[in-house]
Amino acid sequence: MAVYPLSAQQDPEAYEPFKVGMAGYTFHKFNLDQTLDALQKTNVQYLCIKDFHLPLNSSEEQIKEFHAKLRSKNVIGYAVGPIYMKTQEEVDNAFAYAKRVGVNMIVGVPNVELLPYIDKKVKEYDMKFAIHMHGPDIALYPDADDVWSHVKDLDPRMGMCLDIGHDRRNGKDPVADLEKYHSRIFDIHIKDVTAADKSGKSIEIGRGILDFPAFIKMLRKVGYSGVCSLEHEKDMDNPFMGIAESIGYLRGVIEATK
Amino acid sequence: MAVYPLSAQQDPEAYEPFKVGMAGYTFHKFNLDQTLDALQKTNVQYLCIKDFHLPLNSSEEQIKEFHAKLRSKNVIGYAVGPIYMKTQEEVDNAFAYAKRVGVNMIVGVPNVELLPYIDKKVKEYDMKFAIHMHGPDIALYPDADDVWSHVKDLDPRMGMCLDIGHDRRNGKDPVADLEKYHSRIFDIHIKDVTAADKSGKSIEIGRGILDFPAFIKMLRKVGYSGVCSLEHEKDMDNPFMGIAESIGYLRGVIEATK
Repeated sequence: MAVYPLSAQQDPEAYEPFKVGMAGYTFHKFNLDQTLDALQKTNVQYLCIKDFHLPLNSSEEQIKEFHAKLRSKNVIGYAVGPIYMKTQEEVDNAFAYAKRVGVNMIVGVPNVELLPYIDKKVKEYDMKFAIHMHGPDIALYPDADDVWSHVKDLDPRMGMCLDIGHDRRNGKDPVADLEKYHSRIFDIHIKDVTAADKSGKSIEIGRGILDFPAFIKMLRKVGYSGVCSLEHEKDMDNPFMGIAESIGYLRGVIEATK
Repeated sequence: MAVYPLSAQQDPEAYEPFKVGMAGYTFHKFNLDQTLDALQKTNVQYLCIKDFHLPLNSSEEQIKEFHAKLRSKNVIGYAVGPIYMKTQEEVDNAFAYAKRVGVNMIVGVPNVELLPYIDKKVKEYDMKFAIHMHGPDIALYPDADDVWSHVKDLDPRMGMCLDIGHDRRNGKDPVADLEKYHSRIFDIHIKDVTAADKSGKSIEIGRGILDFPAFIKMLRKVGYSGVCSLEHEKDMDNPFMGIAESIGYLRGVIEATK
């Protein structure tokens, strides 16, 4: 992965083990320039790259331009995904893409029967594979317990992207799951939700039911050193104030629990 | 003052002694509809009314419409100001206006020689008068020490609007000043600033030098029961993401210090 060092001055989480970032999906109705503008305005420097901003068939030249644009805004593209995979060919494409992009992690949603194949690919590429969970909406990978059961006996580079909103919407406790499964948690999607079941909707962080002080304290306790990326799925036609409020809330909690 | 009861569900600070609000000045480039839209989006229910949203010569009918519009958005106009006053006539106008608007507090910046006259008016109207401070920019009322020295021997309804940013920019400690002067602090302007001197600029809450966890804890310690109104003075042509981030940060600190 290309490394663009940031000074402590530029990085509000400089002294935390973890980083605050943004999931590309948050901006699925916006182009890369609009996305980077929102990251700059909220002082966020880590982006999980979604294919609508950098397609899987991007050329070397397009990837180079993409990184140059991110670098000009002080943003690091730290992983790719989520990428859905239904065939071995799609797995092959995803790994080749991640390698060309220069990241060492794929956030993915592969069919379960592909896991042994992916287990070989993470060894071949020396790359982490973080399975995304989606709560009660989709039968595939509803929560952290489920992903754990699928990866625990595989290569240690096989793990999960803990989506704290979807985990909670499936009735689970994401703070407890962070503690239990942290050895296999490579990426985190942060969000708040309105209810601990399928009716739960994404909402500005702090307005929902999740306990963010407990979550931040647990990040420190387990020494999570990855990115916590905001995946904000409310008002997606105009999410910017909600994004800013959410990032602000998170940073307020980080500061006040130091 | 007209009272529009809000349920605890609607009010994120329901169990705090203080309230989070917005200083009308934050929106000096925006009309009332745009202002109320921003308050709704950030779930803020208290507005200090600035004259560009409700002129001092407003008719009873205009004031009635103004309140109806606020009420329709679940917003309470809790005070008027800041209002500058250079003559007795301007003092008279301000008190008559506040009474017509139906609030029981004026945030004001009166010439010092008018203070004895205002002291009589607060008794006559049974109204609080909160003197606004402006740091090193303006000789009149630079900080909390200065305002205290002017009001301490006057009627107990004579006090201050503690602007924590301007107080800090004048080299003072707003948390210590909140503790010292809380009996005369009737309103608070919250903001963050980049430096503890005249060079300090308004910045998103959490990005500057003020200690918000200490500030929130002191609000509780002294039992401050007024409003903390965000006066955001950065990117005033497009302040909305900065406003949302600031409100989010403040609420994160409030939650994490409970």
